[in-house]
Amino acid sequence: MPYVNIKITREGATAEQKAALIQGVTQLLVDVLGKNPQTTMVVIDEVETDNWGIGGESVTLRRRRE
Amino acid sequence: MPYVNIKITREGATAEQKAALIQGVTQLLVDVLGKNPQTTMVVIDEVETDNWGIGGESVTLRRRRE
Amino acid sequence: MPYVNIKITREGATAEQKAALIQGVTQLLVDVLGKNPQTTMVVIDEVETDNWGIGGESVTLRRRRE
Amino acid sequence: MPYVNIKITREGATAEQKAALIQGVTQLLVDVLGKNPQTTMVVIDEVETDNWGIGGESVTLRRRRE
Amino acid sequence: MPYVNIKITREGATAEQKAALIQGVTQLLVDVLGKNPQTTMVVIDEVETDNWGIGGESVTLRRRRE
Amino acid sequence: MPYVNIKITREGATAEQKAALIQGVTQLLVDVLGKNPQTTMVVIDEVETDNWGIGGESVTLRRRRE
Repeated sequence: MPYVNIKITREGATAEQKAALIQGVTQLLVDVLGKNPQTTMVVIDEVETDNWGIGGESVTLRRRRE
Repeated sequence: MPYVNIKITREGATAEQKAALIQGVTQLLVDVLGKNPQTTMVVIDEVETDNWGIGGESVTLRRRRE
Repeated sequence: MPYVNIKITREGATAEQKAALIQGVTQLLVDVLGKNPQTTMVVIDEVETDNWGIGGESVTLRRRRE
Repeated sequence: MPYVNIKITREGATAEQKAALIQGVTQLLVDVLGKNPQTTMVVIDEVETDNWGIGGESVTLRRRRE
Repeated sequence: MPYVNIKITREGATAEQKAALIQGVTQLLVDVLGKNPQTTMVVIDEVETDNWGIGGESVTLRRRRE
Repeated sequence: MPYVNIKITREGATAEQKAALIQGVTQLLVDVLGKNPQTTMVVIDEVETDNWGIGGESVTLRRRRE
């Protein structure tokens, strides 16, 4: 009965892409650990680029520099 | 000083219902473990049904099939 | 299909007390929001007092002062 | 490669303030533990006051009483 | 720069199995969303069965009944 | 009443270093957002290097290669 939380920046992931993440990570837990998919939960959080930092700066600023 | 995070799908929970969750889980921690309610924190996350998966598919798709 | 994470300091909560938290918070979600208990997950994290801070100091130091 | 999650109530924190949190906590991990800032991630969650509880009541109600 | 947290019960997952989860979920984010694997983080939490609940009871009790 | 979760690899951080993280991040929230330190919570998770991945491999393997 695993629980998976995936955090990505909010940049237009589609419902189809999110469904592919849910399907893929659930299958991975079946394949690697033999987990039951029926009790495997996945929660995707989409985070604004102002609210995500790496290297000491926000992704918003990092993207602007790139 | 417990911290509780409750994740539910975003499907119209009212402010009153959320207040009841906060009150109830705080009281539970007082009753079971004698925790101080003044330093008990509760955070409720409401998650879009496209972003929540169970059984390898999103709740959006699961609801459509049901 | 809610997911609940409860964080408490590691100070000897028994298996019975943890079972009571699991049972109580699951029932609360049934009572307040009509959620299905069969797909309600609860994860309890017990955190060392050196690793928990409030008021700018660790719980270990806070307990020593009290 | 630390990961930091900061949860605050959604009450108008500006992009500049959030950038200051990201910069400050990344520097703290460099100063205290010698961590590499390039692989230090920070995620800020802003939570509605209806969804945040302390002392058994929501911040919305608490603010109204104060 | 995604962040993934995988929670499983602590029941003897090997270092090789955990490496396979890390490799697999990182590749999934590359395939589905074109994310950069170099800044993709994965954290696996292994949780005692007394501390994990589903259906209102701990996994420890659930396993005993099965 | 912010809540901060800091995840680091378990590699011998001392109680003094963890106290410095707690003190530092609490002060940062006071300085940047004017938050009340008395209701600011910090939880530090120390994660085994087998359980932390970056770049598609565990930190254990990454350290071995370096």
